[in-house]
Amino acid sequence: MIRNGVMAPELTVAGWLNTPGELSLQGLRGRVVVLHAFQMLCPGCVSHGLPQAVAIHELYPRDQVQVIGLHTVFEHHQVMTADALKVFAHEYRLPFPIAIDLPAATGPIPVMMQKLNLRGTPSLVLIDKAGTIRFTHLGPVGDMQVGNMIGQLLMEGSG
Amino acid sequence: MIRNGVMAPELTVAGWLNTPGELSLQGLRGRVVVLHAFQMLCPGCVSHGLPQAVAIHELYPRDQVQVIGLHTVFEHHQVMTADALKVFAHEYRLPFPIAIDLPAATGPIPVMMQKLNLRGTPSLVLIDKAGTIRFTHLGPVGDMQVGNMIGQLLMEGSG
Amino acid sequence: MIRNGVMAPELTVAGWLNTPGELSLQGLRGRVVVLHAFQMLCPGCVSHGLPQAVAIHELYPRDQVQVIGLHTVFEHHQVMTADALKVFAHEYRLPFPIAIDLPAATGPIPVMMQKLNLRGTPSLVLIDKAGTIRFTHLGPVGDMQVGNMIGQLLMEGSG
Amino acid sequence: MIRNGVMAPELTVAGWLNTPGELSLQGLRGRVVVLHAFQMLCPGCVSHGLPQAVAIHELYPRDQVQVIGLHTVFEHHQVMTADALKVFAHEYRLPFPIAIDLPAATGPIPVMMQKLNLRGTPSLVLIDKAGTIRFTHLGPVGDMQVGNMIGQLLMEGSG
Repeated sequence: MIRNGVMAPELTVAGWLNTPGELSLQGLRGRVVVLHAFQMLCPGCVSHGLPQAVAIHELYPRDQVQVIGLHTVFEHHQVMTADALKVFAHEYRLPFPIAIDLPAATGPIPVMMQKLNLRGTPSLVLIDKAGTIRFTHLGPVGDMQVGNMIGQLLMEGSG
Repeated sequence: MIRNGVMAPELTVAGWLNTPGELSLQGLRGRVVVLHAFQMLCPGCVSHGLPQAVAIHELYPRDQVQVIGLHTVFEHHQVMTADALKVFAHEYRLPFPIAIDLPAATGPIPVMMQKLNLRGTPSLVLIDKAGTIRFTHLGPVGDMQVGNMIGQLLMEGSG
Repeated sequence: MIRNGVMAPELTVAGWLNTPGELSLQGLRGRVVVLHAFQMLCPGCVSHGLPQAVAIHELYPRDQVQVIGLHTVFEHHQVMTADALKVFAHEYRLPFPIAIDLPAATGPIPVMMQKLNLRGTPSLVLIDKAGTIRFTHLGPVGDMQVGNMIGQLLMEGSG
Repeated sequence: MIRNGVMAPELTVAGWLNTPGELSLQGLRGRVVVLHAFQMLCPGCVSHGLPQAVAIHELYPRDQVQVIGLHTVFEHHQVMTADALKVFAHEYRLPFPIAIDLPAATGPIPVMMQKLNLRGTPSLVLIDKAGTIRFTHLGPVGDMQVGNMIGQLLMEGSG
């Protein structure tokens, strides 16, 4: 069910919320990393993607699975600012670290969104303990399927 | 179930979305008016209040019931701007007219929110055909109860 | 929204649950009567119709609206017996009176189901204060629409 | 998250639905087995447990995960008969094999329900590829958690 993929590009972002220090994929080796790419004014992110990310965050111990929100603004940049995101994250009580994707030098698509080849929001990216991308999906994914994939990734390299 | 109330204060707002011209309660006499007071970054408004307002808008003919969104920003004013609201209304495909409440000369609570004695968002206000406030409620109200009240108000004065 | 209809045929049923005495439409004049026709092994009745009937029962005062379940078995008669229905009503904590439709002398369709021209389950039948059928529908109906119709029927004849 | 347990007792049941031949845990070694214990007139089974069992059945290939419904009637035996279950399974379009638990010589609790130490319905039992019980739970379990556990069990012994 989970295919092999390429090495995940290191996080190069404009800023962080909900974390005392910056996170790096390098520093998270040994854990499964769940990247949830969203925009604060994207209805599918608010109704489905973010609640699922919160559920993942609540189900797994922090030393096994790290959920990271990635605010990949590719439209309406002028109103989905860092200040607006801060209010949004507060009002929705998002409990996990959120990285703000780096605006690109040219064009509306931010840097990490380009590097991860994401085509929109919400997008779910699963990265295994070794730092490899194992799943990328635009749009809703069922909770059971997400749990199944993370459960499988957790078992890798535990022998 | 629906008690008598006071005359609804006329709408005095900073601007409108989703309507070619300004609306006035005076001009809507003869119809039931549903005011849905919300803030774009209020989770309960997004998950419950606004979808209910859309459902009301879709159920009733326009010449019988007029739904009006009222953007009553009382916190985080710097990010819930008219420009941000415009993007929000577009992304969530809100189909009804939206009035932007007038900032008060002093204090964070905008003018219509004060006049209507609203204590937060989402708030639902039902105004009868004669312009009288018949129901005001902060927080979720069931769809069946809302339908029941509007159905009753529609029958008034039809004899 | 609610058209005029024919006089509802009087209830002629095989038995009752959840009521100390038998109910009659004649005896319920002055109230709106909500008939919910169901079969205990009909998935749409269990997931949607019966919960909605319970919600109606809970929203309205008993002297204004009377909800009546009508067990219209038209298939699998040998397992949807009165004894099985009694267990079902107990396990699902159905709070309103339930009439057991009368088996027909010939054919699988029971008597009230025939008289009411119902084509399947779940079916919703709204009867006004004067005993006239005002709405009949097979399949799901939205809570807001149901509330709207009952609200309108309640206002009739109150002038 | 998934602890070791005891060997699952072999299925000794009164009959089967939805399968050309009888199933045995012995014959299913190498697959993860999901036992969903239910009663056809148990509301929690109908609203939550059985839909989840169907979702598991649909998510996983048959040669990896085998879902088995177990009809453990411990009350109202006279109406939850094999004939009634057959109608229920047909109306709810249950797609997986269903075992009918064996009535006990004495007392209302059937044999497999006793052997599995189940305390009510719905109950979920996960059995690993080696035939060991790894999870038993009465009441609702989240889809993500179920997917996580099955995903982990699938990875065992694959090295």
